[in-house]
Amino acid sequence: MAEKARRVDDALDRALPLRHPERLLASMRYSLLAPGKRVRPVLTLAACELVGGEESTAMPFACAVEMLHVMSLVHDDLPCIDNDELRRGLPSNHVAFGEGVAVLAGDALHCFAFAHAAEATAGVPPMRVLRAVAELGKATGAEGLLAGQVVDIEHFGQTEVGLEVLEYIHLHKTARLLEAAVACGGIIGGAEEEEVERLRRYGRAVGLLFQVVDDVLDVTRTSEELGKTAGKDLAKGKATYPKLMGLEKARLLAEELAAKAEEELQGFDRNIARPLRHLARYIAHRHN
Amino acid sequence: MAEKARRVDDALDRALPLRHPERLLASMRYSLLAPGKRVRPVLTLAACELVGGEESTAMPFACAVEMLHVMSLVHDDLPCIDNDELRRGLPSNHVAFGEGVAVLAGDALHCFAFAHAAEATAGVPPMRVLRAVAELGKATGAEGLLAGQVVDIEHFGQTEVGLEVLEYIHLHKTARLLEAAVACGGIIGGAEEEEVERLRRYGRAVGLLFQVVDDVLDVTRTSEELGKTAGKDLAKGKATYPKLMGLEKARLLAEELAAKAEEELQGFDRNIARPLRHLARYIAHRHN
Repeated sequence: MAEKARRVDDALDRALPLRHPERLLASMRYSLLAPGKRVRPVLTLAACELVGGEESTAMPFACAVEMLHVMSLVHDDLPCIDNDELRRGLPSNHVAFGEGVAVLAGDALHCFAFAHAAEATAGVPPMRVLRAVAELGKATGAEGLLAGQVVDIEHFGQTEVGLEVLEYIHLHKTARLLEAAVACGGIIGGAEEEEVERLRRYGRAVGLLFQVVDDVLDVTRTSEELGKTAGKDLAKGKATYPKLMGLEKARLLAEELAAKAEEELQGFDRNIARPLRHLARYIAHRHN
Repeated sequence: MAEKARRVDDALDRALPLRHPERLLASMRYSLLAPGKRVRPVLTLAACELVGGEESTAMPFACAVEMLHVMSLVHDDLPCIDNDELRRGLPSNHVAFGEGVAVLAGDALHCFAFAHAAEATAGVPPMRVLRAVAELGKATGAEGLLAGQVVDIEHFGQTEVGLEVLEYIHLHKTARLLEAAVACGGIIGGAEEEEVERLRRYGRAVGLLFQVVDDVLDVTRTSEELGKTAGKDLAKGKATYPKLMGLEKARLLAEELAAKAEEELQGFDRNIARPLRHLARYIAHRHN
């Protein structure tokens, strides 16, 4: 998996060379190439291989998924949204480049994600590519990630947020893009309909797991360990799993979700599914 | 052309019904359905017909082009960029919905544009659709619209901006999306390579024309007539065509660009090219 992540890093670097206008490209590259876990693009590559596709055919979509993830972070960190000054261990994009450029660099990553996925994917029937493009658009849009983000903002600082709203937020804000990352890998790799559905369920479980663990880490780790501001959820009065169900129950929920994710991998070849199984465990037990 | 614009209005309204989360969708619809000239989507439809395609097959791309245009306006109006409070005769999106929602609504329109174009286009070979998706991504991204916007911001308030920089800004910020609007219509309609190139040159001329006329209107019309803040370019010390070459020469340049646009239409059927010819003249002589 670490090797896959390194290949993603290389592909991202090659896809987006520094060129004119340099300030815009520098801002895009600053956030895109900041050291990251690359969980989403690695999921795309592994899902493609799981259904018998070549890793390389899924690389443009893997890059597109990471670009969309990063652009959402750049915009979320803005003063008018989450107002975060630290991201991946570095000053947030708007701190480094100014708010105006951060807005536009996020937009440019957005455009580039779709252009790159549509143009650089080679050796795959166009119908599959189109379907995966639509999948990404829906996963990140008003039915997906952005729905979660807006509902999150709406409930910001409210004390009566229940588990149901919290789950809505995380299913949309986090799990939907992880689901799409896995689904796109499957679609590009030529998965059967039923395999795509199983991959989706795996992705959704892993996505929710990711968020539950994120919430747990926010209260148990330091900013230095996380590479972003720790304790900010509590400080901001945000609803989190530990806050709503207690730390121990949140940890148990994480275990359940990891088990559910592994379960969905059962009908696939045990050996080829190993990376995805490993990834679910890694996400469950990660420390930052 | 007015009928085409009305059909675009209908298609936009149907494509994006109000649904949960309502605040996000309301903000998207507020800007997308505000009365607009719909110049770009009408260009897409007319170009598709010009090369023998059915208008309806190009409608999803026509809508996508307008969504991308509108999202760029929503973000440009933000306080951290152009800080404009009036747009299409209404309070800007961030004035009506707050900055955070305006950023996210712009992003959501962005996602939806690509998802809609990829998913709703029917009866067209997938290869053409993919090519048009890539075209849109490049036209709006760091090689296109956003390059122009960033260079514009960089030169903001500088007094030594020359015609060359001004042309770079407008070719990217305005003309590139108009070019893509026309090119996408042609691609979806099945244009030959050489026809696409001619359509591009027409679109580029019309795009630059659009901006020259915009600059002229900014100094000759009132805010009420324009539906947006008038005189703001001058007030902000922005470089414009009238400022750099004088009002009369700017008007002459507009005439030249309109003539060049018409010239590019020559190899096409005179009758079917009428709407595009008419549009170039309309843009040259519009009053708002």
